[in-house]
Amino acid sequence: MKIIKGGVTAPKGFLAGSTSCGIKKSGKTDLALLFSTAPCVAIGTFTTNKVKSGSVVLCMQRIAKGFSQGVIVNSGNANCCVGKKEIKDAMEITEEVSARLDIKKNLMLMASTGIIGRSLPVEKIKSCLSSLVNDLSISNGTKFAKAIMTTDTMHKEIAVKINIKGREVRIAGAVKGAGMICPNMATMLAFFTTDATIERKALNQAFKESIYDSFNKITVDGDMSTNDSAVILANGYAGNSVIKNNTKDYAIFLNAIKFVTKELSRKIILDGEGATRFIEIIVKGAKTENIAGCVATHIANSSLVKTMIAGGDPNWGRIAASAGSSGANINPVCMDIYFGSILVMKNGAGVNVSRDLLLGIFKKKEIKITVDLKSGKYSDRVWTCDFTEEYVKINAEYET
Amino acid sequence: MKIIKGGVTAPKGFLAGSTSCGIKKSGKTDLALLFSTAPCVAIGTFTTNKVKSGSVVLCMQRIAKGFSQGVIVNSGNANCCVGKKEIKDAMEITEEVSARLDIKKNLMLMASTGIIGRSLPVEKIKSCLSSLVNDLSISNGTKFAKAIMTTDTMHKEIAVKINIKGREVRIAGAVKGAGMICPNMATMLAFFTTDATIERKALNQAFKESIYDSFNKITVDGDMSTNDSAVILANGYAGNSVIKNNTKDYAIFLNAIKFVTKELSRKIILDGEGATRFIEIIVKGAKTENIAGCVATHIANSSLVKTMIAGGDPNWGRIAASAGSSGANINPVCMDIYFGSILVMKNGAGVNVSRDLLLGIFKKKEIKITVDLKSGKYSDRVWTCDFTEEYVKINAEYET
Repeated sequence: MKIIKGGVTAPKGFLAGSTSCGIKKSGKTDLALLFSTAPCVAIGTFTTNKVKSGSVVLCMQRIAKGFSQGVIVNSGNANCCVGKKEIKDAMEITEEVSARLDIKKNLMLMASTGIIGRSLPVEKIKSCLSSLVNDLSISNGTKFAKAIMTTDTMHKEIAVKINIKGREVRIAGAVKGAGMICPNMATMLAFFTTDATIERKALNQAFKESIYDSFNKITVDGDMSTNDSAVILANGYAGNSVIKNNTKDYAIFLNAIKFVTKELSRKIILDGEGATRFIEIIVKGAKTENIAGCVATHIANSSLVKTMIAGGDPNWGRIAASAGSSGANINPVCMDIYFGSILVMKNGAGVNVSRDLLLGIFKKKEIKITVDLKSGKYSDRVWTCDFTEEYVKINAEYET
Repeated sequence: MKIIKGGVTAPKGFLAGSTSCGIKKSGKTDLALLFSTAPCVAIGTFTTNKVKSGSVVLCMQRIAKGFSQGVIVNSGNANCCVGKKEIKDAMEITEEVSARLDIKKNLMLMASTGIIGRSLPVEKIKSCLSSLVNDLSISNGTKFAKAIMTTDTMHKEIAVKINIKGREVRIAGAVKGAGMICPNMATMLAFFTTDATIERKALNQAFKESIYDSFNKITVDGDMSTNDSAVILANGYAGNSVIKNNTKDYAIFLNAIKFVTKELSRKIILDGEGATRFIEIIVKGAKTENIAGCVATHIANSSLVKTMIAGGDPNWGRIAASAGSSGANINPVCMDIYFGSILVMKNGAGVNVSRDLLLGIFKKKEIKITVDLKSGKYSDRVWTCDFTEEYVKINAEYET
């Protein structure tokens, strides 16, 4: 596997474009289009929030059919909590763009991100569709990644190349999301492209497994969005022999898509709103997988833990307190805690460690915290970031 | 019922004192003693965190016997996560103070609050016990409330007087807690005194009911402490005929203790770390009590909701998104949201309301948000505060 340039248009047959239609007051690009010149096998996973954007609802309905050829994305407006108009608007926009692309309307997906509760400016968007379509190009992967941003401070994309029985196959992704990030798909849009020829069943399994292990294991603030969508389109342009489940080729593909999703989920945390540090919480020795995940997620969402790390303060007691209050049935007198590789709590009691040594660890950009429950063989890990005054600033001033 | 002065020493027969033994670097008082000149019927409720302070463990064991005569409290050190020494230290300190007071050691309770993971300075504390005991006085209720503070910016106490069959009965309380506050008793210490003569069973029922409705319905940051303790001591000095369950007298007593606990829980929120606003989240029309509580708590703990209110921004979409992601099975197209008395979302869609009107509501010190699920008859309410840059500052710099 080799990392290559080009973002979502690195795989063959994919074009992207963007334009500014005025949803964002700043005048930055806020409308993006990703398009495959041939229909794709398509898989999506979406927010589990009971309140869903009309764009998500339409996207879920269409992708369930199994095929798709593109997705239009607007940033700056969530198309959510405005009533029946949401789905109608999404249908109207996708219909218009698919007509211009001369494809069936059901093959066009839609995603939205931004403020909740405001109607989409449909006429504005429609009046920009012709320039959006005209912008489509195989060199616009990065432009696409930029146009889907909201509070993100950097665009996030990656592409890799693998070899399937002598054929070059490419997999790429672009994501946005910096706040409202919580396991189970929080305000995050993620678009993946591949020119692999792959069975839908195999693509489904590989995609779900890699998403579970990446985007569902990160948290910025424990809030889950109404709009999360992750979509993968596979157009078969690589011309490889079809990848099927449980084969060597599948393993190669799975490994690559896992790398792509993991790297992008990592970029989301690095760009977490106001974040200055990347934190890996590992819980091991748990009696069940559920306990491991529950404790890791609880610690990763603790405001006291996250502000402590923002302050560079190795106050491990907050980790212990958070683990103890996760709701999971753990035995505190078995619990060990490590900062990096340094044991700071053993069997529920503090270990005498030089404070300078710990302060050194907390000055690093990446911090690993391990909780060993010593009660079983299950483990889990969650990535999160620190919680700074800047986070509050960003979110207190988001709308205005 | 009438509010009276004097805090926890307003009820007859209670004395309090405080001193500074050097746990707090600032030199502020950090050791407090509450004492009844006669043994009391005693009830306590404690943190459900699996990681518990040794002080809590000892307190739980002793209060389970049903009687108590006082409590010694240290602030600045949680006496937690230091191993077996925790309970030993708490036993040693309570033994020494009970000897000086000439009471049985099992009648002395202990509570601690502060940093986790550091041994209590037992010798320092013991060397201050004589001045602590000498300080005991019926006029030191407020001094007691001050000595138990950590990051609190104000002391919190209240006392009331009721009439039980012609006899004056007093109920009072002092609490501390400003961060790590979450439903189910988070870093909060609460001490209640009453001179009522009351059956243990009746006291237990009244106390638990009032705590459930007050301290278990507030949240500052969703983190739950290792040290939460709420204790009530009833010494019978009022000389009223014994209050029994399900009587008129019980109803009068219950009403008063509910008032006292509710007012004090309110003071905790008003003093929430960095808080500038008091927020009441009401969820009504829920199919079950559990759903009402789950949705209200989820909204009250949402960083996005709390930072939005800090910013004075009436972005009701975040309330809808938070309700939808609470995990409760709700129907978004039935959901209405009110800011104060103004309907902002009806049946899942935004209502056209003047932004100036909403901005006005968000400028107030107290904000009421109501979510009507219109699916049943159950309701719940949770109190919380906004989430400001100051919260992050306080918690990033707590130890250092």
